[in-house]
Amino acid sequence: MKKLVRFGVSLDHHLLDAFDHLIERRKYTNRSEALRDLIRDNLVGQEWDQNKETVGTITFVYDHHVRDLTRKLTHIQHDFQGHIMAGMHVHLDHDHCLEVLVVKGKGSEIRKVADALVSVKGVKHGKLTMTTTGKGLV
Amino acid sequence: MKKLVRFGVSLDHHLLDAFDHLIERRKYTNRSEALRDLIRDNLVGQEWDQNKETVGTITFVYDHHVRDLTRKLTHIQHDFQGHIMAGMHVHLDHDHCLEVLVVKGKGSEIRKVADALVSVKGVKHGKLTMTTTGKGLV
Amino acid sequence: MKKLVRFGVSLDHHLLDAFDHLIERRKYTNRSEALRDLIRDNLVGQEWDQNKETVGTITFVYDHHVRDLTRKLTHIQHDFQGHIMAGMHVHLDHDHCLEVLVVKGKGSEIRKVADALVSVKGVKHGKLTMTTTGKGLV
Amino acid sequence: MKKLVRFGVSLDHHLLDAFDHLIERRKYTNRSEALRDLIRDNLVGQEWDQNKETVGTITFVYDHHVRDLTRKLTHIQHDFQGHIMAGMHVHLDHDHCLEVLVVKGKGSEIRKVADALVSVKGVKHGKLTMTTTGKGLV
Repeated sequence: MKKLVRFGVSLDHHLLDAFDHLIERRKYTNRSEALRDLIRDNLVGQEWDQNKETVGTITFVYDHHVRDLTRKLTHIQHDFQGHIMAGMHVHLDHDHCLEVLVVKGKGSEIRKVADALVSVKGVKHGKLTMTTTGKGLV
Repeated sequence: MKKLVRFGVSLDHHLLDAFDHLIERRKYTNRSEALRDLIRDNLVGQEWDQNKETVGTITFVYDHHVRDLTRKLTHIQHDFQGHIMAGMHVHLDHDHCLEVLVVKGKGSEIRKVADALVSVKGVKHGKLTMTTTGKGLV
Repeated sequence: MKKLVRFGVSLDHHLLDAFDHLIERRKYTNRSEALRDLIRDNLVGQEWDQNKETVGTITFVYDHHVRDLTRKLTHIQHDFQGHIMAGMHVHLDHDHCLEVLVVKGKGSEIRKVADALVSVKGVKHGKLTMTTTGKGLV
Repeated sequence: MKKLVRFGVSLDHHLLDAFDHLIERRKYTNRSEALRDLIRDNLVGQEWDQNKETVGTITFVYDHHVRDLTRKLTHIQHDFQGHIMAGMHVHLDHDHCLEVLVVKGKGSEIRKVADALVSVKGVKHGKLTMTTTGKGLV
């Protein structure tokens, strides 16, 4: 069950002005939501530092003309199929593909999946994005 | 047409040993590919700094029970439909959804799409991942 | 003159618990100060993005036995003396020196000073740390 | 004793051109030195991930008019005196001071020193910069 708590924050009015401008530019409509996002982002970082069960996305861009590349990438994904929840493939242009995978597991396991894919010859760029199961974050 | 160039790099042997260990842990099978990835990652950062036409992914996690949330998120995506190439939706558990969007445009435009989505109340965590069209990176 | 403003933030009590644990580990004694630090860190990032007048530190580690290295590093510092406010030199061991410089100027100018120093052969590691004049942040 | 090793890297000539432009902007005069810096920066990251004995700098900006602040900051520095090698104090303007400390120890210990200082009320901005003893990096 959800239970909202309310507490007061005190700030110098100059700092509050600067913060209000910043969050307006970032499209927030109220301060509480902006502060909750700052808090949650710090908690997500902590989940990863402590190697908890979590969720990430792995994004990589490659040239599908490179011989044997798609076979290798598929092969690696099968090796880690217990961790990969879903994948999406986008054709960026005639040559380039982008794939995003949603991966769950301990932080260290997700890093292994990312390392295995990003290091393949022909993958031009790859990145791991750390996010969350959402469970701990209300 | 592709044209490979070869050049020599000189390193102290201790530094080379340390590098070889590092790339082995990251699953690289040869040094050239590891060095190319370091180079390409720096070039991608530069593309974004210079606000060039590029590609990113936006990952966000939310609780689909929050009233009116999915409608709002869909609405925002339609506002930016010229930039959003594709999207994927994953059901993390009973409550939580993860969405990943592939977005193209100038770096500053992609940031705007990300800001608009991440700031919505009910989105628990959101991140922009900067990648590339692949074109400039051979 | 300082004028404190107080406003209310509402949070789910689970999120507040998690936040309280996080800030306790980071040694904060009250929530307002932890939130002010999150806010100020975001504002500092914005100052740098907008290329405002700001302050940074440049840290670099080198082996002082490398021929002509200290002369080169001193020479570069003189080229940028209008930007360098102060420097400190620490002897890490028989071979290694660490230097930290405090540099003021526009973000883009400070980056140039850092690039010039870090790229010198013999400098093993160098980093630019973005901080602030403190003026905008109350 | 130093022993240089030389090995060949093969790159597409477009990628090499882009790399040459990038390192020219960053003031490097040769490719080997730029590549060594990329390698060393990755190795430094690894030292910190593995919690090895290392070196960092802690930069913080504060308003020295805040009552009791300088006493508190000095007090904390004495608590960690075994880790703090040196410190420098710069007067940014009438109100603001910047301090940089050079700290050695395990990564986790250095983080504790940084947390203790940055969390003090009146410290407007603080950052930990991860660098190295230089020993492992030739």
